[in-house]
Amino acid sequence: MASEAESSRDTDTQTAIMEATYRALCEHGYADLTIDTINAEFEKSKSLLYYHYDDKDEILLNLLGYLLDQFTVEEAVDPNDDPDIQLRTFIEWLLPWSIDGDEREFQIALLELRSQALSNEAYREQFTRADALLKGAIVDLIEKGIEEGSFRAVDADRTAEHVLSTINGAMVRRHTAEDESAVRTTRKGLEGYIESYLLPDNG
Amino acid sequence: MASEAESSRDTDTQTAIMEATYRALCEHGYADLTIDTINAEFEKSKSLLYYHYDDKDEILLNLLGYLLDQFTVEEAVDPNDDPDIQLRTFIEWLLPWSIDGDEREFQIALLELRSQALSNEAYREQFTRADALLKGAIVDLIEKGIEEGSFRAVDADRTAEHVLSTINGAMVRRHTAEDESAVRTTRKGLEGYIESYLLPDNG
Repeated sequence: MASEAESSRDTDTQTAIMEATYRALCEHGYADLTIDTINAEFEKSKSLLYYHYDDKDEILLNLLGYLLDQFTVEEAVDPNDDPDIQLRTFIEWLLPWSIDGDEREFQIALLELRSQALSNEAYREQFTRADALLKGAIVDLIEKGIEEGSFRAVDADRTAEHVLSTINGAMVRRHTAEDESAVRTTRKGLEGYIESYLLPDNG
Repeated sequence: MASEAESSRDTDTQTAIMEATYRALCEHGYADLTIDTINAEFEKSKSLLYYHYDDKDEILLNLLGYLLDQFTVEEAVDPNDDPDIQLRTFIEWLLPWSIDGDEREFQIALLELRSQALSNEAYREQFTRADALLKGAIVDLIEKGIEEGSFRAVDADRTAEHVLSTINGAMVRRHTAEDESAVRTTRKGLEGYIESYLLPDNG
């Protein structure tokens, strides 16, 4: 019983560290993030953070794993909606028509972490997993739509990779170039693609 | 005449600095790049580099501007080809089916510079210009194809933004996740999109 209580206390501590890391990352961005800035968001003692993690990358890699463990497609879409609506809602969730405040800061922080993957294999592993999860979710939505007759019998894998790359590219462009219209025009292009390519002619 | 000779010598020096910066960036990546590593590629004295530039970001921003000044679509495509072939060749140029060696290193370095744009306005300006140039080139190719009857009368702007975002996203995914098949499947998806969306039914 004691060990169960200990284990639950450990889980609570881990969750609290992950939440503090998330807040600190959004606030400071990758470059200015330190164990001290995470600690400032974390109620427990700093020595506890140092006890758990060697450096900020170890904490951030754990945060990515934690966020991916929590991901479910139901977080983003209502499974009772038509597949067409679910796909559009999922796209809006990943690539919102407009983005501000915390959501904007979080996307920028995520892209900063993604850029670490250019030279760091441990980050690359997490983003490989992230892409596989998102792609899998899009494949499932498309396959369900094909089964139900809402979508034409397209190659689900190919369509999902195309959609995910388009979303990724528009997200990067949104935060690294001063042309918000590029993102909105891409969204319109993506919606036109779904209409002309996925929906049946009588759809 | 003296001032013309001086000006030509200045241009030669600038070009030599840009070429040395390009080589050093490909070799060392952004994080490990210093004025000293650029100097190691540069035949002239280091003091000359310090005379021209305050820090590595100033040199790198100049390199981006230099590369963009040099960009012409003819570098990538043969204007005598059919618009359909030109568009596919341009996509292959930006998002090669396979990538290795210097080309791979250069794309990774470019993405490292692009990630600076997440927090640095001067980089953001250069990538805004880069996206506008590439988008303009794709719009021109599509409009020419529409004029010549090779493409359907699609919205060139929307199609170009969609294609450019897809290419950007696949490029980022290629270098930040371990799934080369995602890039190739995206390429196939993009080619399917061109066939079903741009080419006339009898094409």
